[in-house]
Amino acid sequence: MPRITIEEFNKFAGPGAPFVSYFGARLIEIERGTATVLVPFDEKFIRPGGTISGPVIMMAADLVMYAVVLSLVGPKALAVTTNLNVNFLRKPGRKDLLARGSALKHGKRLVVGEVSLYSDGEEEPVAHVTATYSIPPEKNHE
Amino acid sequence: MPRITIEEFNKFAGPGAPFVSYFGARLIEIERGTATVLVPFDEKFIRPGGTISGPVIMMAADLVMYAVVLSLVGPKALAVTTNLNVNFLRKPGRKDLLARGSALKHGKRLVVGEVSLYSDGEEEPVAHVTATYSIPPEKNHE
Amino acid sequence: MPRITIEEFNKFAGPGAPFVSYFGARLIEIERGTATVLVPFDEKFIRPGGTISGPVIMMAADLVMYAVVLSLVGPKALAVTTNLNVNFLRKPGRKDLLARGSALKHGKRLVVGEVSLYSDGEEEPVAHVTATYSIPPEKNHE
Amino acid sequence: MPRITIEEFNKFAGPGAPFVSYFGARLIEIERGTATVLVPFDEKFIRPGGTISGPVIMMAADLVMYAVVLSLVGPKALAVTTNLNVNFLRKPGRKDLLARGSALKHGKRLVVGEVSLYSDGEEEPVAHVTATYSIPPEKNHE
Repeated sequence: MPRITIEEFNKFAGPGAPFVSYFGARLIEIERGTATVLVPFDEKFIRPGGTISGPVIMMAADLVMYAVVLSLVGPKALAVTTNLNVNFLRKPGRKDLLARGSALKHGKRLVVGEVSLYSDGEEEPVAHVTATYSIPPEKNHE
Repeated sequence: MPRITIEEFNKFAGPGAPFVSYFGARLIEIERGTATVLVPFDEKFIRPGGTISGPVIMMAADLVMYAVVLSLVGPKALAVTTNLNVNFLRKPGRKDLLARGSALKHGKRLVVGEVSLYSDGEEEPVAHVTATYSIPPEKNHE
Repeated sequence: MPRITIEEFNKFAGPGAPFVSYFGARLIEIERGTATVLVPFDEKFIRPGGTISGPVIMMAADLVMYAVVLSLVGPKALAVTTNLNVNFLRKPGRKDLLARGSALKHGKRLVVGEVSLYSDGEEEPVAHVTATYSIPPEKNHE
Repeated sequence: MPRITIEEFNKFAGPGAPFVSYFGARLIEIERGTATVLVPFDEKFIRPGGTISGPVIMMAADLVMYAVVLSLVGPKALAVTTNLNVNFLRKPGRKDLLARGSALKHGKRLVVGEVSLYSDGEEEPVAHVTATYSIPPEKNHE
């Protein structure tokens, strides 16, 4: 069982990060150690060259990794990204974006995971991300 | 001399990526191979834990690297990020964000650079980024 | 069908990179777009703290990615790594190391792949790597 | 003042990582938060295409970052790399390799640094690395 539900996550991450709502990103699946975020396509994401801006992809990847981390450790506000590496693989189409994240390691201090991002309906990923989150010590009663 | 001016860059990158204007990010300095982007502080950037969202930092880094690349190759719409790696170093304060980018390598096919990001007025960086851009072949008359 | 066989790869990469033989690393599986490298355990790999040195893991990951790339493009000597990112996940035991690589993208100019590394017999990976190789233009008759 | 000297580092890292001696790598400078490693050129480093193997560069970067970390925290055997990202920028010549590392952040749990690597006598770096080391808690009396 995940240590946070979709509803809790949306309440928790939403109001505390209002710019997420600008992107329309939302968590649609969560299990212990895995999660999926959907970003509905929006014309405002298009950059020169006619493709979706890289930061939209990085935002989706970071958000889904935050959900993966909270699915493992519960609603800790102070879990923060320490490293994120993204490889952009293909030009995303004018389609919804799906970001599927999973944990590679759940340590006491660090959670490491990877995210594959897809244009909705496509089989080949548009980007691949690995990210590390630092988990605050238990004694920090948040 | 940079192969694109601040005015040209803002015209070029701005309308083609409307979400940049959402962040209020703007190029404030450009030389051949270096550039600086300013992101004025906005309450909407704050995430759970009271710090600026990671994606704001990644957006600023990606944008300044785009300016660094265009300062070297001119206004090529199809110059795209292939890899971006970010290390988050310190919690950014409720302050404007400055992203200073510079080229490490200017090859025919790839430009590699690094970006240091600061809270305005602070000496220690809040994040460090390396990124690679792929440059389209000359025959692509864009 | 891979565009290079195990025998061809060992002949090709071996004599041109004698230090590979120091590590005892060898390709044991290759398909089009995937490959596996085995590094038999050796006491000389042990670093302070009693675990296998990080560079042994990076060497294995780079070598298996080279095999993945050559399985797609054939024996091009000038295919070179442009970026490699490694996350160390768990302390490897005093066991043989297996590096399993696969392609995420096979473009004309870049091949991107990922590698999972395991202590032989273990289910959880000891490290995860993503890497990008640059492919020389066809006109370079090597 | 660094919390470890060149002599102490060579004694400490050397016998515990015998494969370092295979490469002939040695620490030649250390200050608090910075260090330099020299890898004398050796024909055995040459890979197909006539350039120095990537793993030699990654080994030098990891070793100099280990020295940077120990210069800050003292001789802790269990300081381990958690992430390393390398961008290969130029083909290194048949020359000695210099790896210059410095700390970007010295936290309680993580040290982050960057390394620039040069062919001896050249001004342009052959590679750039960022790396994160995890520092064991103080209670671990090593």
